[in-house]
Amino acid sequence: MGLATGVFGATGYTGRELVRLLAAHPLAELRFTTGSGGDHLPHEDGLAQEAAAYLLCLPHGVSGRYAAQLRRARPDAVVIDLSGDFRLATSQAYRTWYGQDHPAPSLLGPPYGLTEIYRESIRGARLVANPGCYATSVLLPLVPLLRERLVSPDDIVVDAKSGASGAGRTLREDLLFCELAEDLSAYAPGRAHRHVGEMEAILTEQAGAAVTLTFCPHLLPVKRGILSALYLRTERAPDELRQSLHRCYAGSAFVRVLEAGPPRLSDVVGTNECRISVHTAAPGRVVLFSALDNLLKGAAGQAIQNLNLALGWPETAGLPVTSRA
Amino acid sequence: MGLATGVFGATGYTGRELVRLLAAHPLAELRFTTGSGGDHLPHEDGLAQEAAAYLLCLPHGVSGRYAAQLRRARPDAVVIDLSGDFRLATSQAYRTWYGQDHPAPSLLGPPYGLTEIYRESIRGARLVANPGCYATSVLLPLVPLLRERLVSPDDIVVDAKSGASGAGRTLREDLLFCELAEDLSAYAPGRAHRHVGEMEAILTEQAGAAVTLTFCPHLLPVKRGILSALYLRTERAPDELRQSLHRCYAGSAFVRVLEAGPPRLSDVVGTNECRISVHTAAPGRVVLFSALDNLLKGAAGQAIQNLNLALGWPETAGLPVTSRA
Amino acid sequence: MGLATGVFGATGYTGRELVRLLAAHPLAELRFTTGSGGDHLPHEDGLAQEAAAYLLCLPHGVSGRYAAQLRRARPDAVVIDLSGDFRLATSQAYRTWYGQDHPAPSLLGPPYGLTEIYRESIRGARLVANPGCYATSVLLPLVPLLRERLVSPDDIVVDAKSGASGAGRTLREDLLFCELAEDLSAYAPGRAHRHVGEMEAILTEQAGAAVTLTFCPHLLPVKRGILSALYLRTERAPDELRQSLHRCYAGSAFVRVLEAGPPRLSDVVGTNECRISVHTAAPGRVVLFSALDNLLKGAAGQAIQNLNLALGWPETAGLPVTSRA
Amino acid sequence: MGLATGVFGATGYTGRELVRLLAAHPLAELRFTTGSGGDHLPHEDGLAQEAAAYLLCLPHGVSGRYAAQLRRARPDAVVIDLSGDFRLATSQAYRTWYGQDHPAPSLLGPPYGLTEIYRESIRGARLVANPGCYATSVLLPLVPLLRERLVSPDDIVVDAKSGASGAGRTLREDLLFCELAEDLSAYAPGRAHRHVGEMEAILTEQAGAAVTLTFCPHLLPVKRGILSALYLRTERAPDELRQSLHRCYAGSAFVRVLEAGPPRLSDVVGTNECRISVHTAAPGRVVLFSALDNLLKGAAGQAIQNLNLALGWPETAGLPVTSRA
Repeated sequence: MGLATGVFGATGYTGRELVRLLAAHPLAELRFTTGSGGDHLPHEDGLAQEAAAYLLCLPHGVSGRYAAQLRRARPDAVVIDLSGDFRLATSQAYRTWYGQDHPAPSLLGPPYGLTEIYRESIRGARLVANPGCYATSVLLPLVPLLRERLVSPDDIVVDAKSGASGAGRTLREDLLFCELAEDLSAYAPGRAHRHVGEMEAILTEQAGAAVTLTFCPHLLPVKRGILSALYLRTERAPDELRQSLHRCYAGSAFVRVLEAGPPRLSDVVGTNECRISVHTAAPGRVVLFSALDNLLKGAAGQAIQNLNLALGWPETAGLPVTSRA
Repeated sequence: MGLATGVFGATGYTGRELVRLLAAHPLAELRFTTGSGGDHLPHEDGLAQEAAAYLLCLPHGVSGRYAAQLRRARPDAVVIDLSGDFRLATSQAYRTWYGQDHPAPSLLGPPYGLTEIYRESIRGARLVANPGCYATSVLLPLVPLLRERLVSPDDIVVDAKSGASGAGRTLREDLLFCELAEDLSAYAPGRAHRHVGEMEAILTEQAGAAVTLTFCPHLLPVKRGILSALYLRTERAPDELRQSLHRCYAGSAFVRVLEAGPPRLSDVVGTNECRISVHTAAPGRVVLFSALDNLLKGAAGQAIQNLNLALGWPETAGLPVTSRA
Repeated sequence: MGLATGVFGATGYTGRELVRLLAAHPLAELRFTTGSGGDHLPHEDGLAQEAAAYLLCLPHGVSGRYAAQLRRARPDAVVIDLSGDFRLATSQAYRTWYGQDHPAPSLLGPPYGLTEIYRESIRGARLVANPGCYATSVLLPLVPLLRERLVSPDDIVVDAKSGASGAGRTLREDLLFCELAEDLSAYAPGRAHRHVGEMEAILTEQAGAAVTLTFCPHLLPVKRGILSALYLRTERAPDELRQSLHRCYAGSAFVRVLEAGPPRLSDVVGTNECRISVHTAAPGRVVLFSALDNLLKGAAGQAIQNLNLALGWPETAGLPVTSRA
Repeated sequence: MGLATGVFGATGYTGRELVRLLAAHPLAELRFTTGSGGDHLPHEDGLAQEAAAYLLCLPHGVSGRYAAQLRRARPDAVVIDLSGDFRLATSQAYRTWYGQDHPAPSLLGPPYGLTEIYRESIRGARLVANPGCYATSVLLPLVPLLRERLVSPDDIVVDAKSGASGAGRTLREDLLFCELAEDLSAYAPGRAHRHVGEMEAILTEQAGAAVTLTFCPHLLPVKRGILSALYLRTERAPDELRQSLHRCYAGSAFVRVLEAGPPRLSDVVGTNECRISVHTAAPGRVVLFSALDNLLKGAAGQAIQNLNLALGWPETAGLPVTSRA
């Protein structure tokens, strides 16, 4: 009998992965799930059911309200929020990037669940803000290099490509098969995507200097996976950067620094790994590639890592650590 | 009865497009085609057949030999070479980027067939070097901006994505359906791709200053199309850059500068258009997107533009000018 | 100045093809289009605008109402209805297959626009019922063989596969990229699909004997195209059947009977052709394959054929007749 | 320490799945693998290495020679042959369907590894002929119905669709991404596919009456999965057939008889399940659908089932039994 766990919003793509992972988790027991739609308050469906841990896969705005009610009704329970509601530190930043008032400002500022970077503050936490999928793919390669001041903080270009499940199981015309197949499109170019706020805040904190990103996401005709190319300014050789990444992620089961060629989506889809490579470019520049499965390391898999830490369990419990190559 | 035209190497993806375009061309008549494989000299198959214009879709190294024999045997005929053999100006540069001796060094230096930029030198030419597909996608947006010194020549990052037909109809394992579907991979990162030599040479000439690119191509799970993102350093507003592009391409039927959102592959696949958009990014940076069909504007379509100019015909003859949107 | 033509419902996939075809039609001029949604009556948007020909790409039920109003207001105009509203002969059959009352029973029974079979009755007609895409793909190979009693009318199995655009530009979850890519599903198996009613009625009429089909459609992860396999009972050799098809379609520009291997979707997508092949199977059985583009010969292309005949124009006007192979 | 196991031909798609499954098998230990290419005899690479079980993923013709040498050198070892070399009972049948002499006629006639049907003869066997992927998909639904004489043995039509990995990791032009994407093609129509020989022999044996199939396979633009539609003649109701299937497969972990709608490829890809549904069709006919993953239940997964039985292990060892829905 594992620990009683519930998933709010279990019918979307991320929610389904959570259900699948929890079903195989050796220490947790999936006690209930709710649908993804609507904005009923928790007491209407799931809150009535007692659990020791809750995972929220709900739309932003709704998720924060649920979190607030759960914190009130079950103060000892762990809440992992997979929406964007607790990723930014202030209600002002939330209003800037989400265009609305924060649903639960008094809870702002929980640990940011980029597990490998904020491991210590996640241990034992009762509320964790699970990072965005793009943010995970960009922050894991960047944080160690900025911390050690190996790359310039003021000239960072990220060109990211995501499979369609990143947009969720949403009835949008641009997500129809006939619109996406045999196509590729950029969207929210420059600094318009919501994850930019989250990424810049974390990077600025970690770099100890203001970081302003250029970030252009693309929608790929594939179901899963994110591949990001990061163009950085530095005089250091790729090998020096690679060593920094190795130092940071030694002992981390789910980040793999490659010695050679760029990772492919198919290397990581279906796994909880983020794979990173470093390459020379024009003088004064390097390019890094970072690949992960947006539904696993970019969402449900990292949520389980955070759940494990919050509950004092081994970080890898319930997550396959053997990789495919 | 149109002008007698022959295609060497008509069975690959580009060759097939050439055959299709020539079949519908009002002024040309397709007189003969040869297969793509092998390295027989022209007299063995096509050279014996007289024509007034020849299009070469052959592997580099082979193509140059054919061109040399054709120039000798039919000095009045027009030769459009779609291989990389005549894109670089010197045999030394050719050795650097292609790793072998040039097959016909005395012919080096014909007009570079980026039609909209080198129109005047292509008119009446007997040999034209048709540009690479990536090069076309990168040079069309960059040349006007560098000419007018609106962007920095020493800080240019290009992240390019191409459909699989860009690699040709080649029996390579990485081009199998099972390897490409649901995948994305970067290759030749940094400055390793052959088109870098071609692009830097043209850009340096046009900018009047040394240009060193960072260029990372990706292989997309789609059949056709290239979408390039160009990250440039400038203090100018996007609108100023857009005006420069409009000035350069006013009167060009096949380059369209967009006022708004990024172009999609599906906007240009099946057409001879290159579509370009300009967007704000982090302070001091802009991002441009450029989309084209790698087999048309990136290869066979531009070859027909060049054939038309070389023969004194209207540039758009045989090419659909109405776009799909 | 071509003949004034209007398209009701121009934003769906079929409507867009109609607009594209009419834009290039040498004798017609596209005067107006309306959106696909809603159920406003014609006078609200398009009916006010005078035209000599109307093409209706509207949902069944709505389309019939529009047709009735157009027939009343513009009795001399030609109306080509691409919905299912006029394909069945009686309101009872309509109620059986569409589950609702017919919107304009007094107009029932116009010519069925399977052009090659009903050419004579379509010439000069003021209302034509354009066939379903599956129906076209099944009827073209079957009608000649049943007419000449070369195959058994009471043992016909059809296994059909269609690209996703056959379901229209509809916001249905099963049409999302993430649901369709890398998948295949059968639907409406046995005799449940609406086109069965239409097919059985035409086949029964043509065979002079009751025909009951087994028909199983599948949803393919491709954008366009239908490939149907027809399993028929006969003692005749494939060649005899092929001769019958040749006899029937000699002089028809858009039906091609192949001498050899099965047609592929890519042979016909983008063309108005239906390609048919005949093969041996178990003793007493043959299998036929039929391929067409569901948006062209299966919808918009055939609609233009019918428009041409109704107006006394050449049947191929505005339709490319050169094929790709 | 599990039982020492070796895989000959581990670099193809099926071989890779075997390696993956054996790596996670609780009772077996993968001791060595060899590449797929070439036709060196076993002593050249793998035979020198001792193992208690060998799995052969080699081309037909080669595989039989390896099997013969292994049987001689290691008479106690278990050999599971995934090629077609031992699926037919006689060298004459082999010559008919494979067009060459059998490489090891004295070994002909081992148990046919359609696990659920031949379980008893597989237990303890030293050589097992693993069935073809199409054959598995067709035989599992058909055998119980023919055994109980619920459907006619002389009027069976199968329309099958397979993902591209069914053709192996072969450098064939028709398997290139640009050839397969957005396409569908039928091949080997009627009775030409090699699996027909294997299927008819098993069906004839099980039915106690001559069975002649009509079988048309199609190549789908997906990586994995087979969906077969079986059109059968019977006066029985679908429910009666469903009961027969339930009786046959009660207690079989990997065959699931559905009460409702047709199975989709995505229901079974990544699992070792075969899912079967039964539906009404025209009077006197039913249609069955059968779906499986061609690389698992159609190849490597079933091979592990057979390995388990041959070695006296639980049939499901090393195979995930929880399904995805």
